[in-house]
Amino acid sequence: MNDNVHRTSFHALRLKRLGIDTYQEPVIYMRSDCHVCRAEGFEAQSRVQVTLNNHSIIATLNVVTGDLLAPDEAGLSEAAWRLLGARAGDAVALSHPPVLESLSRVRAKVYGKRLGDADMRAIMRDVAAGRYADIHLSAFLAACAGDRLDLDSEGQLVASVLSEKAAAGSSHVVIDIPVGDTAKVRSRDAAQTLSHRLVEIGRIIGLTVQTVVTDGAQPVGRGIGPALEARDVLAVLRREADAPVDLRERALRIAGAVLEFAPGVAPGAGVHLAREFLDDGRAWKKFEAICAAQGGLREPPVAAHTHAVTAAQCGRVTGIDNRWLARVAKLAGAPRAPAAGLELHVPLGTVVEQGQPLFTVHAEAPGELAYALDNIAAQPGIVRVEAEP
Amino acid sequence: MNDNVHRTSFHALRLKRLGIDTYQEPVIYMRSDCHVCRAEGFEAQSRVQVTLNNHSIIATLNVVTGDLLAPDEAGLSEAAWRLLGARAGDAVALSHPPVLESLSRVRAKVYGKRLGDADMRAIMRDVAAGRYADIHLSAFLAACAGDRLDLDSEGQLVASVLSEKAAAGSSHVVIDIPVGDTAKVRSRDAAQTLSHRLVEIGRIIGLTVQTVVTDGAQPVGRGIGPALEARDVLAVLRREADAPVDLRERALRIAGAVLEFAPGVAPGAGVHLAREFLDDGRAWKKFEAICAAQGGLREPPVAAHTHAVTAAQCGRVTGIDNRWLARVAKLAGAPRAPAAGLELHVPLGTVVEQGQPLFTVHAEAPGELAYALDNIAAQPGIVRVEAEP
Repeated sequence: MNDNVHRTSFHALRLKRLGIDTYQEPVIYMRSDCHVCRAEGFEAQSRVQVTLNNHSIIATLNVVTGDLLAPDEAGLSEAAWRLLGARAGDAVALSHPPVLESLSRVRAKVYGKRLGDADMRAIMRDVAAGRYADIHLSAFLAACAGDRLDLDSEGQLVASVLSEKAAAGSSHVVIDIPVGDTAKVRSRDAAQTLSHRLVEIGRIIGLTVQTVVTDGAQPVGRGIGPALEARDVLAVLRREADAPVDLRERALRIAGAVLEFAPGVAPGAGVHLAREFLDDGRAWKKFEAICAAQGGLREPPVAAHTHAVTAAQCGRVTGIDNRWLARVAKLAGAPRAPAAGLELHVPLGTVVEQGQPLFTVHAEAPGELAYALDNIAAQPGIVRVEAEP
Repeated sequence: MNDNVHRTSFHALRLKRLGIDTYQEPVIYMRSDCHVCRAEGFEAQSRVQVTLNNHSIIATLNVVTGDLLAPDEAGLSEAAWRLLGARAGDAVALSHPPVLESLSRVRAKVYGKRLGDADMRAIMRDVAAGRYADIHLSAFLAACAGDRLDLDSEGQLVASVLSEKAAAGSSHVVIDIPVGDTAKVRSRDAAQTLSHRLVEIGRIIGLTVQTVVTDGAQPVGRGIGPALEARDVLAVLRREADAPVDLRERALRIAGAVLEFAPGVAPGAGVHLAREFLDDGRAWKKFEAICAAQGGLREPPVAAHTHAVTAAQCGRVTGIDNRWLARVAKLAGAPRAPAAGLELHVPLGTVVEQGQPLFTVHAEAPGELAYALDNIAAQPGIVRVEAEP
């Protein structure tokens, strides 16, 4: 009765491509009656180490009870297939994964303990190696939410922004800091502190940094969604009569700050120079050249399905719920579906007639349009119109 | 361009049983090129409302790119199949699920906000209806861990324990409260408070409650795991010579408290009465009768694969890591595999020879035995033996 098995035993199955896409989670499909499940005691949701050509991943087991697989076959989700570089018929070795020690640190974090650098590094190493299941990632994110990350999060932000610019080879950088109740930075004071830090750290690593603090209280331009935002940008560059003025002014201000890095441009003169470049068509020409260098300028796609939401009464627009606008754009398919999103027709303060369009929802699929509209019907205050006294 | 679609549209697919077991998570399998995915913009990990005969569930979408399904077919995981009571060929209606409003409360909780009764009820209603994916449940559990549940957790414990007894029709109840560093109750004081509450609330709802505060510092008996624990219990009842003494004494003390509920049994006399019943074989006869009434007494299964872990040196057992013992039992397959677990041969203070067995690991599958042993090798201090001076 006393076995002398003192090492993890390995078992092999032949791979069959089932073509099941589980997004990023690696899943392995095995029969409950295959020799590996029986020898290892694996069952649905077990974590299984899958090894092919000395490369290992950890996958979640879905047990197949039907005839999808032969007893000596295993399937992999598309993500797992790609991670292993598998081909049909390859033999994979299967075993219990090593106990994931870093999960005990996740557990400690969930219970409110503070994690040190070594703990965070151990977790990040296992996450990067694909050893965490979605439920582990979900628990870890929940445990780190808000101010529970125990990191200098502004420090991380500064490091992340500036190291990216430095890595791209920049020497001079302009950074827009929008301030608003629903923006990342909530107050002018916080913007000043962040600005000072960006400039200081930039100086230390050899980057000239200039910040521009702007109004983040409402979205800039009219569109929300990839194509609709691109359309706003093109309208400004092409000097179309109905181009959004707020986007134009924001862009000129930032471009002006960039131009002032150039020798001979006096402080405050940049924005005038930028306006000149935009108005005489040089900015558009340059943009066309940039597009050409990247394979040509293409017009943004137009959504096949649109619906205008109109004012129930006449009056003045006194409130816009930006959080709901973003949510509607997402329900309509943005940013995954490039043409999806919404177009806001009435900035704050606009006087509208009854039946006048407030915003138009754009979708690529009819079901997504219906889904967004269903949710708008349940939330009438997205754009608030109040009768004038 | 201006559609007048203002309701969620429904689409149908025929069900094919794929026989894939994803444990409790409902999963739906659909082709990316089916008319529903195209019309609704569904993709891998989308949440999909699946309706059959007026009964709806929400399932996570796994997209099938191969020929597992015909374009007009959908598959369901076994859990989803059971929840809907589906049969092959049934037509299911598919749509976007309503926005799960209670998730905004989960989000608030993750960010440290306190939830009210109405919030908790809304979350529990959606959880019970199967509307949460595993990642949502995982985030919610992480957000509620430790003392973050904002509930009177001892009150919940008392209510849960006593309502169960009342529902089973009991009138008199003895409750064992083990106290120890790794037990649920950490101190004698906490045990007294809990005891008082159990007795008081019991009195109010008409239950006579007696508590017994016991030593929870180390496990009682030798076995950890379903069959091994049952074996300990049978040894005590059968008065075997090597029956674990600590389990025998614990059982007599609790049985004594039960007997003292009977008229004519003086306080303190119960334990002697219990010892008499055990020693003269009446307890065993009664146990046999209880088993017979439930279909017969069967001996607990014996594990096919066992391995004894031995002392590396002679000396005295000065420490036992109970958390690791429980972990090893789990790695070996307990409690899912009934015969799996471990048997501890040396209580604290035992003097052992080099090579003497400290504990034996039991497993039903050879891979699980190897897995447990691999982990023991990485954790040598599970049973600590120190040389005597």
